[in-house]
Amino acid sequence: MQKQIIQRNERVEEVFHLFIKHIQNFLKEAKLNHEEYTNFVNWADRLGKKGELPLYADVFLETHVLRAMYTDKPGTQPSLLGPYFIEGSPLVESRPGEPLVLTQRPDEAGEVLYFKGSVSNTDGMPLGNIRVEMWQNDNTGKYSAFDSDAPRYNLRGHFDTDENGNFEVKTIVPLPYSIPTDGPTGEFLEYMDQHPMRPAHLHLMFEAEGHETLITQVFFEGDEWLETDVADGVRTELLTTLEDKDDHKEASLNFFMRPK
Amino acid sequence: MQKQIIQRNERVEEVFHLFIKHIQNFLKEAKLNHEEYTNFVNWADRLGKKGELPLYADVFLETHVLRAMYTDKPGTQPSLLGPYFIEGSPLVESRPGEPLVLTQRPDEAGEVLYFKGSVSNTDGMPLGNIRVEMWQNDNTGKYSAFDSDAPRYNLRGHFDTDENGNFEVKTIVPLPYSIPTDGPTGEFLEYMDQHPMRPAHLHLMFEAEGHETLITQVFFEGDEWLETDVADGVRTELLTTLEDKDDHKEASLNFFMRPK
Repeated sequence: MQKQIIQRNERVEEVFHLFIKHIQNFLKEAKLNHEEYTNFVNWADRLGKKGELPLYADVFLETHVLRAMYTDKPGTQPSLLGPYFIEGSPLVESRPGEPLVLTQRPDEAGEVLYFKGSVSNTDGMPLGNIRVEMWQNDNTGKYSAFDSDAPRYNLRGHFDTDENGNFEVKTIVPLPYSIPTDGPTGEFLEYMDQHPMRPAHLHLMFEAEGHETLITQVFFEGDEWLETDVADGVRTELLTTLEDKDDHKEASLNFFMRPK
Repeated sequence: MQKQIIQRNERVEEVFHLFIKHIQNFLKEAKLNHEEYTNFVNWADRLGKKGELPLYADVFLETHVLRAMYTDKPGTQPSLLGPYFIEGSPLVESRPGEPLVLTQRPDEAGEVLYFKGSVSNTDGMPLGNIRVEMWQNDNTGKYSAFDSDAPRYNLRGHFDTDENGNFEVKTIVPLPYSIPTDGPTGEFLEYMDQHPMRPAHLHLMFEAEGHETLITQVFFEGDEWLETDVADGVRTELLTTLEDKDDHKEASLNFFMRPK
């Protein structure tokens, strides 16, 4: 096996030195003793070996990365990408006169949801024919490709907005769910006296030339976990209302992308 | 399997909230973008899965934990416990009229070293009959029990100081060595343009009733890696001199333990 060639990276150096500066401030204030340090390292080792590091980081750190990046900036606030995104989702094909249907099983359980969105830039100009990626959990609260019996790309897909920046997609109402609690992440939740629930949400990612990619989530008014979301992903402007129709629900939200 | 009962831990809550406060400051200053966050998480996931998290933490973070705890306090400065300590080392038995001999193979390669120490409290009162734990690498730069052919407890042992707080142990001169570079920790070193070497050192741990356990290392004047130790473990007061004798080396250091 040839040795991988890795070059000096001044951005890594810069970020690491800033990290150490702030960690020194943290250590001075927290007065961590050596036994606490050792306990932390043992826990982090178990977390890492179990493959829960991305879960832990996305649940407990990603929201702070996003807030530091986007607070007080124009455009729709991002929310977590989270650990359940996978590459390679199928194109959701449009059929004339019919709404888009997010990839699903013929007998997909759950309440039918028609979700409408419009996408524009921060000046309100519609962004037509841009790519929308969407993923969500199913009626058992599980994401396909993660501890689920569903096909790999179930309730995952991508499609384009129409020429006016709009889209409508038929799917099911997602469910609140518990993050995994059987490993070191669950152990941390117990220490913190924090429940493991996330409110129901749709994941959306928008890509448009000349604009920052927008990764966000849509939440629903009335969800009992909005205030105490374990991952702190809820933002007021990402809330929508589930409207009751005869045999389905409807919801909508407008999205605003920031030019680069 | 029964569920492990874990209780709320207010110290974990306190430390985590302080950690997040300082991480927010770090994120504001470093202006980490989402792609950099994702790259970091992917690297940390590989680090964790390979079991290198304790290595990384001990090399790049432990020194800051120690400095925050001990700088400007009386007593010998601690240095890293490091990832190569293991529990259960054998008692080094004393034989009348002979020095202690650290656990080793009959044909142990390397330069013979007689290391003398004296242990007292921060007022200079000798600490007699207290436990000293010692471990070090061998003449190939390896630690027993870690990627080495040596017996599990080779060059590891514990013994007591004499009634005057002194000890003398026959061992070999330890060698400078490279931390592992074939995984994500090595990748990080390449980004940082940092060599992977640690200067030669003895590991020592002192335990005495009524005193803080002292975990430290002893380094040798003239070692080419003292200034740029990858783990930043060197402290001036932990330096000693290797004195040339006919067929061996001698070195000594005095240690001062802080009362609880």
